[in-house]
Amino acid sequence: MTGSIPIQSVRLYEVSPRDGLQNEPEILSIDAKRRLILGLVGAGFRDIEVTSFVRPSWVPQLADAAELVRSLPAVQGVRYWGLVPNERGLERAIECGLRNVATVLSASETHNRKNVNRTRQESLAAMRQVIATAKDEGVAVRSYISTVFGCPYEGAVAVRDSVALASQLFEAGASEVALGDTTGMGDPVLVQRVVGAMAAAGLPLSRIALHLHDTKGTALANVLSGYLAGVRIFDGSIGGVGGCPYAPGASGNAASEDLAHMFQAMGIETGIDLERASQVGVALADDLGRELPGRYHRFWLGSQARARATRSA
Amino acid sequence: MTGSIPIQSVRLYEVSPRDGLQNEPEILSIDAKRRLILGLVGAGFRDIEVTSFVRPSWVPQLADAAELVRSLPAVQGVRYWGLVPNERGLERAIECGLRNVATVLSASETHNRKNVNRTRQESLAAMRQVIATAKDEGVAVRSYISTVFGCPYEGAVAVRDSVALASQLFEAGASEVALGDTTGMGDPVLVQRVVGAMAAAGLPLSRIALHLHDTKGTALANVLSGYLAGVRIFDGSIGGVGGCPYAPGASGNAASEDLAHMFQAMGIETGIDLERASQVGVALADDLGRELPGRYHRFWLGSQARARATRSA
Repeated sequence: MTGSIPIQSVRLYEVSPRDGLQNEPEILSIDAKRRLILGLVGAGFRDIEVTSFVRPSWVPQLADAAELVRSLPAVQGVRYWGLVPNERGLERAIECGLRNVATVLSASETHNRKNVNRTRQESLAAMRQVIATAKDEGVAVRSYISTVFGCPYEGAVAVRDSVALASQLFEAGASEVALGDTTGMGDPVLVQRVVGAMAAAGLPLSRIALHLHDTKGTALANVLSGYLAGVRIFDGSIGGVGGCPYAPGASGNAASEDLAHMFQAMGIETGIDLERASQVGVALADDLGRELPGRYHRFWLGSQARARATRSA
Repeated sequence: MTGSIPIQSVRLYEVSPRDGLQNEPEILSIDAKRRLILGLVGAGFRDIEVTSFVRPSWVPQLADAAELVRSLPAVQGVRYWGLVPNERGLERAIECGLRNVATVLSASETHNRKNVNRTRQESLAAMRQVIATAKDEGVAVRSYISTVFGCPYEGAVAVRDSVALASQLFEAGASEVALGDTTGMGDPVLVQRVVGAMAAAGLPLSRIALHLHDTKGTALANVLSGYLAGVRIFDGSIGGVGGCPYAPGASGNAASEDLAHMFQAMGIETGIDLERASQVGVALADDLGRELPGRYHRFWLGSQARARATRSA
């Protein structure tokens, strides 16, 4: 590990409107969500997961999915994504005009059963069908695999299980597979091992994303490890929103502005305007009525306050 | 950068009682400081910077330096360190029985002038004298170089200046040189470049420490980069204490419990008991009356609360 760090551009995939907001006690209005999403577009995000088409009674925070998607302006180069749990969700997503959808299953058998009340194989069969239908419609599919880096019920998850699932999802036609560290159990060595196993199995790293949570503070170190192992797509949520604020200390997704800042400081292009991304983080914290865990937007807010104090002194 | 991550033990150097508390608006009682330090000892920390012998009027938080040091029990294998600004500080540290002291100067000329009202060369000459006197007394010296990874006044700092200073401090007899990212401006590429330059100049990496701040969320990624580049000594403060709580979003040192957890998850030995370290972080947050930025102690607190809820359900 003594070679130079390669400098290649990365793509950030933004999950705050879906994975972020679905765990918040505060339900944002459709106007606030639109402001968030348009703010993200303005800050340079090009892939934004805007909502989920699960049954509204399951995730009331996202019950406005169809209305929200219909209200979003088409922007050149911007892909809006919607999570779909099944064929019915896929239909709903397509009905409101989405051309990009995401599916999810777990690498851990127990987590998959608790999450969707199916075995992994049942989920995989269902997702194959969703992916096939989506492809028939010309809709792109990103497939999440949750708990790749550890399961809150089972502990360690066999790397070969994640590799087998990723391989089957690619074969089924997924355009991208996102490896999720659902409860922040990953570490840099494990990330290297998992990504290395994916590459060794011949899977295309250029189409593998890392979706990392910062529960124990390791998200950015894990991102760096994934980058060094060859991954170039990273998920984040602005402000790091996405933990469960009811659980003390639960931290959310890797904060997008922290990711963007780290890469840009390294000389790696992300396409993100850090100032505008920080403004979006500050506005979201305001809308949710709580301090968000992301660092950079708070650093930026502090530097603005210091600049004002200097001007008025 | 495709080789395996090496698995070699690291040494954590704890700075919370000094670098952490000196920026807190709350002044802890000597009893609370003793509890903190003894808690750290109990959690397995072996190098603890307990105070600073600057003029008490400058840092009222640490005005009890001599009394605190005299009150600490000798513990086999534990080294207490005290920061000394000059020969007078060194005398005071030795008078109360300290056998390990730390000196500081800045890699940035402007920061050094603002911090101690001297040029870097004047500081270096003074530190040479302090180190010589300490060595005559058989006292070990760690020498900090601040702003190695960026200066809030000058911006980028020339790597060759830091290498020259580190080289001169080793020549003067410092047992260890700690490279400081005083305001969290470092990134993984810069860390690799700086550490690589130190190694290329023939300086002993086994005696170089990284002292990184988490202002923009990059501390653990920078630690990982430093580890990959060959550094094996890392500074941290429990709970991540050490930012300025008056500045919105200012984050402190790398959190020791987050560092210890990340390394241990990687299979790298630190000697730290994570549960006891988390308890110390929780107690310190309580004493300071604010939530601290470190992640792992809050994750641990949440997991305790969830375990209690499960037992009583």
